[in-house]
Amino acid sequence: MCLWGYAMILDKINQPNDIKNIPREELPALAQEIRTFLIEKLSLTGGHLASNLGVIELTIALHLTMTLPEDKIVWDVGHQSYTHKILTGRREGFDSLRKLGGLSGFPKREESACDVFDTGHSSTSISAALGIAQARDLAKEDYCVAAVIGDGSFTGGMVYEALNNASRMKTNFIIVLNDNGMSISENVGGFSSYLSSLRTNEAYTGLKRAAEDVLRHSSGGEAAIRKIRGMKNNLKSILLPGSFFEQLGITYFGPIDGYNIDRMVNVFQNARKVRGAVVVHVLTQKGKGYPPAERMPARFHGTGPFDIETGLPSKKKEKADWSDIFSTVMCKEGKKTPNLCAVTAAMPDGTGLKRFRGMYPNRFFDVGIAEEHAVTFSAGLAVGGMIPVFAVYSSFLQRAFDQIVHDVCLQNLHVVFAIDRSGLVGADGETHQGIFDLSYLTMIPNICVLAPKNKWELADMLKWAIRKAEGPVAIRYPRGSAYDGLEEFRAPILYGKWEILYDESDLCLLATGNMVETAVKVRAMLKKEGANCSLINCRFVKPLDEEVLLKTAKEHNLLVTLEENVSAGGFGSQVVSYLNDVGLQTPLECIALPDAYIEAGSVDLLRKETALDADSIYKRIRTRMIGLYSL
Amino acid sequence: MCLWGYAMILDKINQPNDIKNIPREELPALAQEIRTFLIEKLSLTGGHLASNLGVIELTIALHLTMTLPEDKIVWDVGHQSYTHKILTGRREGFDSLRKLGGLSGFPKREESACDVFDTGHSSTSISAALGIAQARDLAKEDYCVAAVIGDGSFTGGMVYEALNNASRMKTNFIIVLNDNGMSISENVGGFSSYLSSLRTNEAYTGLKRAAEDVLRHSSGGEAAIRKIRGMKNNLKSILLPGSFFEQLGITYFGPIDGYNIDRMVNVFQNARKVRGAVVVHVLTQKGKGYPPAERMPARFHGTGPFDIETGLPSKKKEKADWSDIFSTVMCKEGKKTPNLCAVTAAMPDGTGLKRFRGMYPNRFFDVGIAEEHAVTFSAGLAVGGMIPVFAVYSSFLQRAFDQIVHDVCLQNLHVVFAIDRSGLVGADGETHQGIFDLSYLTMIPNICVLAPKNKWELADMLKWAIRKAEGPVAIRYPRGSAYDGLEEFRAPILYGKWEILYDESDLCLLATGNMVETAVKVRAMLKKEGANCSLINCRFVKPLDEEVLLKTAKEHNLLVTLEENVSAGGFGSQVVSYLNDVGLQTPLECIALPDAYIEAGSVDLLRKETALDADSIYKRIRTRMIGLYSL
Repeated sequence: MCLWGYAMILDKINQPNDIKNIPREELPALAQEIRTFLIEKLSLTGGHLASNLGVIELTIALHLTMTLPEDKIVWDVGHQSYTHKILTGRREGFDSLRKLGGLSGFPKREESACDVFDTGHSSTSISAALGIAQARDLAKEDYCVAAVIGDGSFTGGMVYEALNNASRMKTNFIIVLNDNGMSISENVGGFSSYLSSLRTNEAYTGLKRAAEDVLRHSSGGEAAIRKIRGMKNNLKSILLPGSFFEQLGITYFGPIDGYNIDRMVNVFQNARKVRGAVVVHVLTQKGKGYPPAERMPARFHGTGPFDIETGLPSKKKEKADWSDIFSTVMCKEGKKTPNLCAVTAAMPDGTGLKRFRGMYPNRFFDVGIAEEHAVTFSAGLAVGGMIPVFAVYSSFLQRAFDQIVHDVCLQNLHVVFAIDRSGLVGADGETHQGIFDLSYLTMIPNICVLAPKNKWELADMLKWAIRKAEGPVAIRYPRGSAYDGLEEFRAPILYGKWEILYDESDLCLLATGNMVETAVKVRAMLKKEGANCSLINCRFVKPLDEEVLLKTAKEHNLLVTLEENVSAGGFGSQVVSYLNDVGLQTPLECIALPDAYIEAGSVDLLRKETALDADSIYKRIRTRMIGLYSL
Repeated sequence: MCLWGYAMILDKINQPNDIKNIPREELPALAQEIRTFLIEKLSLTGGHLASNLGVIELTIALHLTMTLPEDKIVWDVGHQSYTHKILTGRREGFDSLRKLGGLSGFPKREESACDVFDTGHSSTSISAALGIAQARDLAKEDYCVAAVIGDGSFTGGMVYEALNNASRMKTNFIIVLNDNGMSISENVGGFSSYLSSLRTNEAYTGLKRAAEDVLRHSSGGEAAIRKIRGMKNNLKSILLPGSFFEQLGITYFGPIDGYNIDRMVNVFQNARKVRGAVVVHVLTQKGKGYPPAERMPARFHGTGPFDIETGLPSKKKEKADWSDIFSTVMCKEGKKTPNLCAVTAAMPDGTGLKRFRGMYPNRFFDVGIAEEHAVTFSAGLAVGGMIPVFAVYSSFLQRAFDQIVHDVCLQNLHVVFAIDRSGLVGADGETHQGIFDLSYLTMIPNICVLAPKNKWELADMLKWAIRKAEGPVAIRYPRGSAYDGLEEFRAPILYGKWEILYDESDLCLLATGNMVETAVKVRAMLKKEGANCSLINCRFVKPLDEEVLLKTAKEHNLLVTLEENVSAGGFGSQVVSYLNDVGLQTPLECIALPDAYIEAGSVDLLRKETALDADSIYKRIRTRMIGLYSL
């Protein structure tokens, strides 16, 4: 089935601005072709389907109003930029979407001059666009700058920092508020409720009617006043739909139907003429036009390959994910530990906290895309006697670095960080790789940083962190299927203690987290050649098990550290510093990720690329051993 | 002169809740005594004067409404908590304010049960208080929770993340908006303008009058409608002073005179009864009651000892500060580099950018207390062809860690970070020490991290960063007087190249930034004993000068790294990792700060405490050398 084979209009879109040659009356059909194209392509490659289906018409309208690449569109998060990619001549790339060396799932300046700013994390677009607009003014140029941002991203604090500054700008700058009533999962909080109230209003039309009705039907002043007084609360929401923005000094247009291209073009054209910052509030629907995605937008936010007819995943999940293990333990612990709380920043599905939410709704907190608040809120919960577990993706926790340093660790509070998607994550690429957490966490005083080798160990660590730990604890674990090997090794978790899996001689592999699985393979390869090889599961990256490390360093001829984290400041770096501090000169090979951002691709391929797969590690160790023995 | 010696009422305040025994009519006099006490004490010790003078009455009113420590007050930033400290029995501590082992200038849980949450950085209080309030509800307790937060802190994004969540709470939670119309310097942005409009209104009184006037003076409906339409814009600000908060679902009380204790007590008592989150908007004045501080609130934000009569500093500044050097170079470069921009997060005074603002107002951006936005906004400026320099204190840049990783370095943008207050900062203590930056920066790909040895080098580095560098550059320099020794050494800055100051043998000191000054002293002590000692100024902490390091390691018997940064992931850690990677086993002593938060105290004392002063380093090296030679 090749639905897009029939794409007659889409074939005419081969470079930026080609869209302007399409007759207006054909645009709805074009939108439909793009919709079909995306559904078909993504059913094979996977990708962000729901968000992209929602903004096809919106993107068409923007491209009709703008001239690319002169005008600049900054896509917040960027997972809704697929139509933008198609309209700027990158349709052919969709076969390699999110693959190594292929089309990125996010805007990439390296990929096209029409991608003006790389995104991936939420809530950055207004700040970036504002910087670009200011630079334009200083350079006395006059291109148009727009940020396209979802209502979900409005739960992130940076947006308000940017809005607060945007209001001071006296030049054209458009914020397209793409309001689909959701972030990745259901949206939360006061601003979301406020937007809902806007969605159901007809903007300023409402203002006139309400005021006129009151006055027309009143005969005298006093009665009218009473009515006005009585209606005060209602009036507040009816009269001033845009006042939230206008109080910040930002012009507001909307709400506008996100599927009416003509209307959007008209409003965007008017918005270009407004002096100062202007919000254009566009109503869209996640998954628009593909019933399974409309019904289950969270499922189709980031999807793997799926069957178009049924919407079901092409491949069934065979093993539990790390998130599933986390989910199960949290639900069980919720019963045993009545003061256990779970916190997520808009990721109840992704982190596996959905079940906890169902079972303990009072102790579950989805704070929206607001990692900073999540951490300090957790600190507050801890001060109040609760045991908060903040489940978060590694790369998103970077947002709350200062809050971890300043609000949690400084006070040595018992907050547990369950850090999902640590290490290489694959298709989401540079912005989502969780490859920095060991570095940015182990440098913080008071924190304790763990990584499990397999699914049982994640469970044990989480229980330990909840029941036994007293200060801040971070547990990092990868994306995807939880390793279920090495079941025979299950020593109890003890503070700062490593687990010796194989105690031999000559060579010792010091592996942390998912690198234990790889280390087992490497060890098998080395054993085949007759090498003696110890293997230690370095569960605690901070604090190091100095006792075991000291003994190991003394008893072996070569140590090898293994981690899926950048080398600078990571596990190996702690080990080499420790050995230096105690004056031990045992040869040490630190195997880690390079000092670089790592692009999208399957995790297996990325490991090969970065020489972090078993084969490469085996070869590297062998070379080092030959070097050592030849000395 | 011992003004507070006459403090008759203040003598009766010796423990929490004593305030409640003071007759209402004596409270204004008590406030005056506290005011005099603070002025006198701070004239000797220095401290945060202006913010504390502003909230004396506000704090009294809060303490009258609450029972401490059962009820919880979270002080945002915390530099306004002096009256709170006095009212909770810590008056005696003010002689040791901000000294080593003395009374902290910020709330400290370790100091008093009445300090519920440690603060220091801005905009955290609502998140923390919300966490405490939720914990209270879960524990089925019923104490009162309040956050006291300045309008300046409202430029920080975390506040909106917290407000967005606060609106969902159905239980009592008070946000006291301490509105003095300033942050540390003048306040900026849309929210600030919005608050100004509130300040000049009489809240809901205005609503009634406006509506009544229109209707009373109109004879017919149509005329009134026209008038209403015409007044629409005015009405918006007059009718709904609290609507910004109320749109987020938060009850609003105010504005209230922050010097009318009775009125505040009344409103706070009512606020306690409100179900859900409630904002109490209190109007205060920075420096209230002390004319020099009223006139120059920014100067008296954090002040050193001063003369009470004149308000002038007790000690004249003898040397230029690092910030002054930065300031001068920026002003000169602004002329030579027409696309140079300067960005600050509410610190035009502290960072030294005030002069740049005066000379190049179009290229100066004060974004408010909004480090996250500042970084991504700078990234936008860079994309638009400008060269942005973001001047920021080291510990505050932690807030923007993800933005540095995700928005600047990933795109390899030419953004310059001028990192002031790096290393030990002294009296502000734990929350303000800039001791993590080498670690959290050097782990990021693409960035280049420098530290100058003296004032000329700061100038040269800044020029290099602006004119020559192509990607992200961070320059870290300390608080206080710029070192003006070693003028004779001024090799041009070259990418990744260190500066060899003394090339001898045996021992080599590898010092970075302000530790070069210390290293010179240490070297002199070692030379006295006849030791040979090289000294290298390791200007680039990233990338390391591998060529020089390799050669040095081969030609010396002992290397010593010196840095004012935590050891984990810092400069020494990079050096030891590099030497290990290349297989060199030259003995290496890494001297750095311990893995701990470092309390307040004079920088000299703190260096002694952490063994980072010349004497301690000399002794440590000597011990190590004896160890080496006895081998």
